[in-house]
Amino acid sequence: MIKVGIVGGTGYTGVELLRLLAVHPDVVVTAITSRGEAGRPVAELFPNLRGHFDLCFTDPAAGDLDHCDVVFFATPHGVAQLTAPGLLKKGVRVIDLSADFRIRDVALWETWYKQPHTAQELMSDAVYGLPELNREAIRHGRLIACPGCYPTSVLLGFLPLLEQGLVDQGDLIASSASGASGAGRQANIGTSLAETSDNFKAYAVPGHRHLPEIRQGLEDIAGSGVGLTFVPHLLPMIRGIHSTLYANLLNTGVDLQRLYEDRFRDEPFVDVMPAGSHPETRSVRGSNVCRISVFRPENGNKVVVLAAEDNLVKGASGQAIQNMNIMFGFSEKAGLLAPALLP
Amino acid sequence: MIKVGIVGGTGYTGVELLRLLAVHPDVVVTAITSRGEAGRPVAELFPNLRGHFDLCFTDPAAGDLDHCDVVFFATPHGVAQLTAPGLLKKGVRVIDLSADFRIRDVALWETWYKQPHTAQELMSDAVYGLPELNREAIRHGRLIACPGCYPTSVLLGFLPLLEQGLVDQGDLIASSASGASGAGRQANIGTSLAETSDNFKAYAVPGHRHLPEIRQGLEDIAGSGVGLTFVPHLLPMIRGIHSTLYANLLNTGVDLQRLYEDRFRDEPFVDVMPAGSHPETRSVRGSNVCRISVFRPENGNKVVVLAAEDNLVKGASGQAIQNMNIMFGFSEKAGLLAPALLP
Amino acid sequence: MIKVGIVGGTGYTGVELLRLLAVHPDVVVTAITSRGEAGRPVAELFPNLRGHFDLCFTDPAAGDLDHCDVVFFATPHGVAQLTAPGLLKKGVRVIDLSADFRIRDVALWETWYKQPHTAQELMSDAVYGLPELNREAIRHGRLIACPGCYPTSVLLGFLPLLEQGLVDQGDLIASSASGASGAGRQANIGTSLAETSDNFKAYAVPGHRHLPEIRQGLEDIAGSGVGLTFVPHLLPMIRGIHSTLYANLLNTGVDLQRLYEDRFRDEPFVDVMPAGSHPETRSVRGSNVCRISVFRPENGNKVVVLAAEDNLVKGASGQAIQNMNIMFGFSEKAGLLAPALLP
Amino acid sequence: MIKVGIVGGTGYTGVELLRLLAVHPDVVVTAITSRGEAGRPVAELFPNLRGHFDLCFTDPAAGDLDHCDVVFFATPHGVAQLTAPGLLKKGVRVIDLSADFRIRDVALWETWYKQPHTAQELMSDAVYGLPELNREAIRHGRLIACPGCYPTSVLLGFLPLLEQGLVDQGDLIASSASGASGAGRQANIGTSLAETSDNFKAYAVPGHRHLPEIRQGLEDIAGSGVGLTFVPHLLPMIRGIHSTLYANLLNTGVDLQRLYEDRFRDEPFVDVMPAGSHPETRSVRGSNVCRISVFRPENGNKVVVLAAEDNLVKGASGQAIQNMNIMFGFSEKAGLLAPALLP
Repeated sequence: MIKVGIVGGTGYTGVELLRLLAVHPDVVVTAITSRGEAGRPVAELFPNLRGHFDLCFTDPAAGDLDHCDVVFFATPHGVAQLTAPGLLKKGVRVIDLSADFRIRDVALWETWYKQPHTAQELMSDAVYGLPELNREAIRHGRLIACPGCYPTSVLLGFLPLLEQGLVDQGDLIASSASGASGAGRQANIGTSLAETSDNFKAYAVPGHRHLPEIRQGLEDIAGSGVGLTFVPHLLPMIRGIHSTLYANLLNTGVDLQRLYEDRFRDEPFVDVMPAGSHPETRSVRGSNVCRISVFRPENGNKVVVLAAEDNLVKGASGQAIQNMNIMFGFSEKAGLLAPALLP
Repeated sequence: MIKVGIVGGTGYTGVELLRLLAVHPDVVVTAITSRGEAGRPVAELFPNLRGHFDLCFTDPAAGDLDHCDVVFFATPHGVAQLTAPGLLKKGVRVIDLSADFRIRDVALWETWYKQPHTAQELMSDAVYGLPELNREAIRHGRLIACPGCYPTSVLLGFLPLLEQGLVDQGDLIASSASGASGAGRQANIGTSLAETSDNFKAYAVPGHRHLPEIRQGLEDIAGSGVGLTFVPHLLPMIRGIHSTLYANLLNTGVDLQRLYEDRFRDEPFVDVMPAGSHPETRSVRGSNVCRISVFRPENGNKVVVLAAEDNLVKGASGQAIQNMNIMFGFSEKAGLLAPALLP
Repeated sequence: MIKVGIVGGTGYTGVELLRLLAVHPDVVVTAITSRGEAGRPVAELFPNLRGHFDLCFTDPAAGDLDHCDVVFFATPHGVAQLTAPGLLKKGVRVIDLSADFRIRDVALWETWYKQPHTAQELMSDAVYGLPELNREAIRHGRLIACPGCYPTSVLLGFLPLLEQGLVDQGDLIASSASGASGAGRQANIGTSLAETSDNFKAYAVPGHRHLPEIRQGLEDIAGSGVGLTFVPHLLPMIRGIHSTLYANLLNTGVDLQRLYEDRFRDEPFVDVMPAGSHPETRSVRGSNVCRISVFRPENGNKVVVLAAEDNLVKGASGQAIQNMNIMFGFSEKAGLLAPALLP
Repeated sequence: MIKVGIVGGTGYTGVELLRLLAVHPDVVVTAITSRGEAGRPVAELFPNLRGHFDLCFTDPAAGDLDHCDVVFFATPHGVAQLTAPGLLKKGVRVIDLSADFRIRDVALWETWYKQPHTAQELMSDAVYGLPELNREAIRHGRLIACPGCYPTSVLLGFLPLLEQGLVDQGDLIASSASGASGAGRQANIGTSLAETSDNFKAYAVPGHRHLPEIRQGLEDIAGSGVGLTFVPHLLPMIRGIHSTLYANLLNTGVDLQRLYEDRFRDEPFVDVMPAGSHPETRSVRGSNVCRISVFRPENGNKVVVLAAEDNLVKGASGQAIQNMNIMFGFSEKAGLLAPALLP
């Protein structure tokens, strides 16, 4: 049993960590902090947790996190870089769900996030927490930068193709769509039901913060520069990310279905669908699985990859727990066994 | 052609007035005010109006409203009582969609709305704008208090029964449900899609602001005091109010279907459904109709009335235009002819 | 480890049984039957089960069910009464999620379900599987009739009031609403997204099949006849039932909050909410909990009870597993521990 | 006043024709046929039409269509090719909303629609009813083949680029998404709310029937062969199509915003959005407008076009009426004036 702390437990990735950790056999959540809600029971804010946690939010200054084995940051960007250094010095391992340690090029980070980075010295220690790519580094990591929700689906989808150099890496397209929970738990006219229900739109076409992160990840896989067009869309639903990926094959002789099945055969949370079938976001609702299909329409030179995940699970809190499981030598599936909620 | 002004055009009842007035043959909208958005084209805020209105929001202090024949207040409560008196003095007729002039008992209003009422002297002039009840008074009214969305459905639903004294008026129940647009266009965690979609709940069971308004309306119809239990619910959808009404019949020998059909035969916007059928909110989406069904389950002494309306049309802006049509001698259906959007 | 069989695994209660049993520590699902889908892997029909079950549907005639310790019937009414007798003779215990054995008055059953009942001799053995009412009988039951989804919420909501004789049992009202999954997994224009999304309506006001079941349950609790008005509504969402219950208090001096808390204190799956709060269906999405609030609006003599459950869990498959846990001496919460999926 | 007939009025494009024609100043609907519903009032099937149409469905064999000036086919493919020839011989003009006359290459049509075409002799007379491309031909047409819903959005979106030869026409991508009403009004598990709500998926990636139609349209515009990848997706909502189009610019020196504004300046139903803004499907809900935005992300050589329309209006019935208006010399906007329903 390890002791787990959560910073910023009032958002969706926070409550999702709690939902999943409630049934994790190897951990006990000992601290959850929130400046604004200190003293309030978490189950009051999130009634689904009634009967599962007696815990109250505490002020981060109270020091409860220092006694944890691992602390999750479920915070907006800018918070982990301030608080994580102190915890790391005390030997607490840190899993950051925010963007603070995802982009190695600090100047690039500062451009996209429009603020100075205050913990640059930690960048070289941070491990990008995509287990399918970095499992060994994660095992020994003390600071994990969990991938963003969109990046997880795009990177997993392109992974086999780029690893094998099978596509023109100068012309990659990711047409992605996310449920509204991706915007976080916030008061915002733009995400109110009356504005977003029964509606669909693209947004941030000129540039989205996940673009440099995706590009870095793709280049890590490909080994050199890539050209990427990324268009996110907002779905009239709560959970789920679906990425439709397009690339031009350099070699049309490859058995793509087999390529994907081979690459992900031993991955506990990537499911390559049978040939010809299409993954649905509901088939991963609440679960840590990313389901992927690969197509070559009309047997041409265009490859189309479909990747579906739950943005709050494989795209955030579930993947964070998967990272924790690897770091602490637990079964990688511990706490992540439940099938998706369907219907 | 009359000149129409709108105060508070940035909310849902404001944009709905514009949507409906865009095809009204007898009016031109000459002014729409918003302190926060002054100078901005209305079609920028509401892209559905692109090509329909070139109008920009102006500051209410600019005086554009003074030249109107009629001004709609599509504002939160508390605004109309401040601004309407000046307009009325200048001969401008006022149709208030807010709660400011709905409740004749000012002390009661102040209790529920938790602020002093600053235009008490106008209360006696205000006409409660439910055409099915007050058509003649509306015709000559200079200040119309448009009914709330819930009250419209409950009052129309109970109207024939109470007018005829057919039910125990001491034990009336209204179990109502509203789409999320009823909460207005506002930044609020509680009305975000991620919180309200795929969800249903009752709210304000201990007391909702529409309770005293409904009770006053029922008592006006019944001619004496009534006992009312009112439970509102929040629906995971944008538009629509549905009220399920329960009462105990004093006389089970009445042909209820015929009673309702007779009462509303000449009403252009109340549709009594065929016996045995159930009204759906989608059948009135975007239209000014309230559809009503009446049942006597198992031929017992309980009467169940179902009433469906679009909360933004018959429950707000459409009814306001219906009032205007009556006031200015237009066809009562002018601008309100389009069928509901189904599917 | 007991062996579990499922008849009719192609519907929503079937897949929900599988979803929940996938993480149940004490059972193995050894057979799942479907005439139409025999030979097909269940995970092909329900992709959320990929990686959790290798099982294929088999023909019910193949006899796989005979070797089970318990068989769940997740079938339309009429099936269990044909097949259950044979299984019971072989010593297999049966948990029927359909309506076949819920109503003790066979003539009444035949009237509402419009077909003869072919296993009347079993009616006296059938235990109505509401653990909060019949836990001891369930423990020794060999044939459990699981309550319907609406009845569960209505019976639990009225339970403390009727047990104590605190309300006028001649005038009970249940205004209930259900998500669309309550209609089952079927091809039907009336439940297509384009017809039911963004819509709300009452249905079956003249009479719904759950009415006699609810009435029987209420009378069992009250000890004598009751008068009930039941109005179901269809919600534009997948899962969830919410019942708003109205009754007239005979005695307004009772502390209702305490009454409910005391009655359900030891119940693992009934959660009495804090005074003044309202249960939301999303707070039980995917979980076996029924959350209840009780109100006395304006301190009058009307009591309003709100009860929220997931129609597929506490309203069907979860409750069925709770029954199984009781029957086989497992922890009553086994397999039912996960918190609800929120958001 | 012309006389209008509708064949197949029980589907969504049929009821949408009626909704729009109800407020059209120049037409009267004199006949609506349905074999299955003959004798039934249309307003019984579609309650939003109560008070707007007294019309009953008649049997197509009754001959009512012969006396019409124009007949709309709102039927599945295969029907118009059987019935239209007889009407055309009698001088009735025909506007077909189905796929029967869209594809000039009859063999190609037969391959995709898997049945022989029985009216090949009419193919040369059929005009593809996209007014932005074929207005003059439509004016004199006697048989109009209305474009499919997806094709309308893709063709309008690519139109200016292909007309000017600005992109590599060998590598065009259309990533499109449609609301569930696009599947028509039918009983189908796959389109039930419980299966499609809160869900997103691609479908028909190996090949969709709209692919050859889109390709033909693009080639008509470009003047020679094109390469197209088309991936449709299913949205958890009722109405709306959104296409995200990708192409490689041959010339990055063109002012794309101006190109689009110039091309569509005089088009009454194509709205080029201000630079940097993204069209939303809700901004065209119920209206005949297609809103388009054009982007060049990171000022690279990829152009991204966004096109939003209501699949039942500009994607079907509204465009059909626009065609009729052109054919009969009415104002092109007649009956199509109402702003979209927002929120």
